[in-house]
Amino acid sequence: MDDLLVQLRAGLPPEALITDPDVMASYARDMAGFCEAGAPAAVVLPRTVEQVQHVMRTATALRVPVVPQGARTGLSGAANATDGCVVLSLVRMDRILEISAVDRVAVVEPGVINAVLSRAVAEKGLYYPPDPSSWETCTIGGNIGTAAGGLCCVKYGVTAEYVLGLDVVLADGRLLRTGRRTAKGVAGYDLTRLFVGSEGTLGIVVGAVLGLKPAPPRQLVLAAEFPSAAAACDAVCEIMARGHAPSLLELMDRTTLRAVNKLAHMGLPETTEALLLAAFDTPDPAADLAAVGELCTAAGAVSVVPADDAAESELLLQARRMSLTALEAVKSATMIDDVCVPRSKLGAMLEGTAVIAEKYDLVVGVCAHAGDGNTHPVVCFDHLDEDESRRARESFDEIMALGLELGGTITGEHGVGVLKREWLARELGPVGLELQRAVKVAFDPLGLLNPGKVF
Amino acid sequence: MDDLLVQLRAGLPPEALITDPDVMASYARDMAGFCEAGAPAAVVLPRTVEQVQHVMRTATALRVPVVPQGARTGLSGAANATDGCVVLSLVRMDRILEISAVDRVAVVEPGVINAVLSRAVAEKGLYYPPDPSSWETCTIGGNIGTAAGGLCCVKYGVTAEYVLGLDVVLADGRLLRTGRRTAKGVAGYDLTRLFVGSEGTLGIVVGAVLGLKPAPPRQLVLAAEFPSAAAACDAVCEIMARGHAPSLLELMDRTTLRAVNKLAHMGLPETTEALLLAAFDTPDPAADLAAVGELCTAAGAVSVVPADDAAESELLLQARRMSLTALEAVKSATMIDDVCVPRSKLGAMLEGTAVIAEKYDLVVGVCAHAGDGNTHPVVCFDHLDEDESRRARESFDEIMALGLELGGTITGEHGVGVLKREWLARELGPVGLELQRAVKVAFDPLGLLNPGKVF
Repeated sequence: MDDLLVQLRAGLPPEALITDPDVMASYARDMAGFCEAGAPAAVVLPRTVEQVQHVMRTATALRVPVVPQGARTGLSGAANATDGCVVLSLVRMDRILEISAVDRVAVVEPGVINAVLSRAVAEKGLYYPPDPSSWETCTIGGNIGTAAGGLCCVKYGVTAEYVLGLDVVLADGRLLRTGRRTAKGVAGYDLTRLFVGSEGTLGIVVGAVLGLKPAPPRQLVLAAEFPSAAAACDAVCEIMARGHAPSLLELMDRTTLRAVNKLAHMGLPETTEALLLAAFDTPDPAADLAAVGELCTAAGAVSVVPADDAAESELLLQARRMSLTALEAVKSATMIDDVCVPRSKLGAMLEGTAVIAEKYDLVVGVCAHAGDGNTHPVVCFDHLDEDESRRARESFDEIMALGLELGGTITGEHGVGVLKREWLARELGPVGLELQRAVKVAFDPLGLLNPGKVF
Repeated sequence: MDDLLVQLRAGLPPEALITDPDVMASYARDMAGFCEAGAPAAVVLPRTVEQVQHVMRTATALRVPVVPQGARTGLSGAANATDGCVVLSLVRMDRILEISAVDRVAVVEPGVINAVLSRAVAEKGLYYPPDPSSWETCTIGGNIGTAAGGLCCVKYGVTAEYVLGLDVVLADGRLLRTGRRTAKGVAGYDLTRLFVGSEGTLGIVVGAVLGLKPAPPRQLVLAAEFPSAAAACDAVCEIMARGHAPSLLELMDRTTLRAVNKLAHMGLPETTEALLLAAFDTPDPAADLAAVGELCTAAGAVSVVPADDAAESELLLQARRMSLTALEAVKSATMIDDVCVPRSKLGAMLEGTAVIAEKYDLVVGVCAHAGDGNTHPVVCFDHLDEDESRRARESFDEIMALGLELGGTITGEHGVGVLKREWLARELGPVGLELQRAVKVAFDPLGLLNPGKVF
């Protein structure tokens, strides 16, 4: 242990190394509930690539595990410390190095906050789409590690689609440059994409070239109330089958609506079973909303209200963005799921989730990136109630089993971390798991990078 | 050898196995010039996944290399046979298994012709964008193997962005299922993307889930004549910096224009130094073309002619699509390059290519996916003239060196194959190359899959 600190100090400025146990404890975990977390031996906050390389060389020399962290807003425990590890927090490497309108790229360090980057590129008429709910605080490095999604994905895809090239410090401290800053490139295997979503288990991302889009027109939002989740899902399928390209297509169930009202007095309709929010950032969003409104009505919507202006649209989005927070306030604890099913199975997924909630006598609120078939069932329970806690865990598992049964995945955007390790094995099967592990060994033969996560 | 044929026969219907030397010779190479090709020991044309598994099990048992093939339209020798190998042609596995408008996916076998799929999805109001020039004959499996591009990429991206999930037969015959049929999914490392562009060196793709887009409005094309390549590149940069989203943005230089006229009497302007084609498939393409036309004029275009209708647009695209064929007719042989540079460096790339052509006293025609910075300099030479052949090869290398110098890649969409193996090492550097090889070993420890390609 002493050896570790001595060697770390040799290549780091004093302010980069934290050893105070209380301060270190604040770096122990991300925002996932019910995931184990250990006590780090040291927390390092590097400012340069060289400092990261020094940490990894030291860790390799002494065989000490390293847990990389961004803003710790993750929801699966992937950033949780393990006992005796070095926590490597990248938040101080937060420079935007370049924004190019001609090349439509940004070159950034991993600690840049998503919202800071989004606003900086917007000032140049550009758009960085990935917008996880935590976008005001989460880092680009964390987004890359978890392959984060958001509301934008139904039109603009996930983080992975915007990562063109990476600088990565490997387990042994060597620096790897992958990918490109060109629009296209197929030279060798796509290692860039392999790092995206690898949750810090393959290397430490210390720089990224991100693709950008031109800024779209401001989106307008429509809210449609449905008498059943099934009817709302029918509308979603019809909207997508007809070729519409909404910039978001979100669903909130009654439990979620009530929770949001309770938290923020937003005046959302509480008698409605499912509220669908659709938005367009097209040249004529009102026309697109009108067409989608008709499809909603045909699917059984009892109310279809297009927002009159940007301010009203923003209010509706705020309601959606605070859904998880609001559901967290329902009981003392929550487990947030992240099952993504084929869009055509969304209705079956919601119906099945309701059955599971009833079976286990639990409150399960569902908000969903409906256009992507990506549901977030939030199991609300009293963590001091042992029986309810057990039922919560069992229902959480059953929801994932249902997702797999419907041809879906256990995680659409939150990642595996500690929370879903066992379930990853079920989704991948033995051949898939074996190859994933072989890839891990190829990059991290000593198993020092974020051990105990993903697999 | 006898052993190989006996064991192959044991698990294959007679018509799936070809051993006639003359017929086998026709499977020896793809469309790349100047790449070595060997004589296969057998050519297998399976119709089922089980037959592919049988081939791989046999190959592993007997340590025989296997070279997977699609339609052999590749331009880098990746599908060339090696001596004594089994050529595994997937062209008979050509079924479209499913097209879903709600889920916006197609499920296909690898031998489906790109154009067949494109037309089948179009009938359902859907769009499969990747459109390499060979789209009428090339297979989806080949497109996946090479991560093929095309004219659509400036707006719609490359093949990789449409591959959601894969069924892959591994070197040892086991079947691996990767990825998803959902819109999103981050369960484990992205092995799907790793296979895309791996040129048959990691496994045999036997099935794919492809993402689809809604069919866009029919595109309208504009042609702008420029007095210099530099002026045309200025226009390209300005168009992209201003946030336009053309559905194609292509450049043909004077050599290319003349070659196309000579081949097809298209009446293209021969005194012009660079012809830029821009298209939009937006709701109001005429308005977008007008705006882009103004930018072209401001950049120095001497003539800006929007196509009046779809037929005229199609004619302009035909001219672009036949560019490579036309340049191939200039002399007895060509070497087709595929350098992609940051868009902002496109002018420097074209200027440098002209200097190289002059230095080596060669005809080098350039057509380019200009919006992506992806140039195809075509070195035309007489292959019976030893000195000219040598100069052609040297100029080809110098063009790649220039691309790397400008921050680009040696291959934007054609792949590495045999042709650019040495150059891949230069682009990746030693650390990158080592990790790529480690990945190869993880998937193919015996080195049986398409040996001698890529690395």
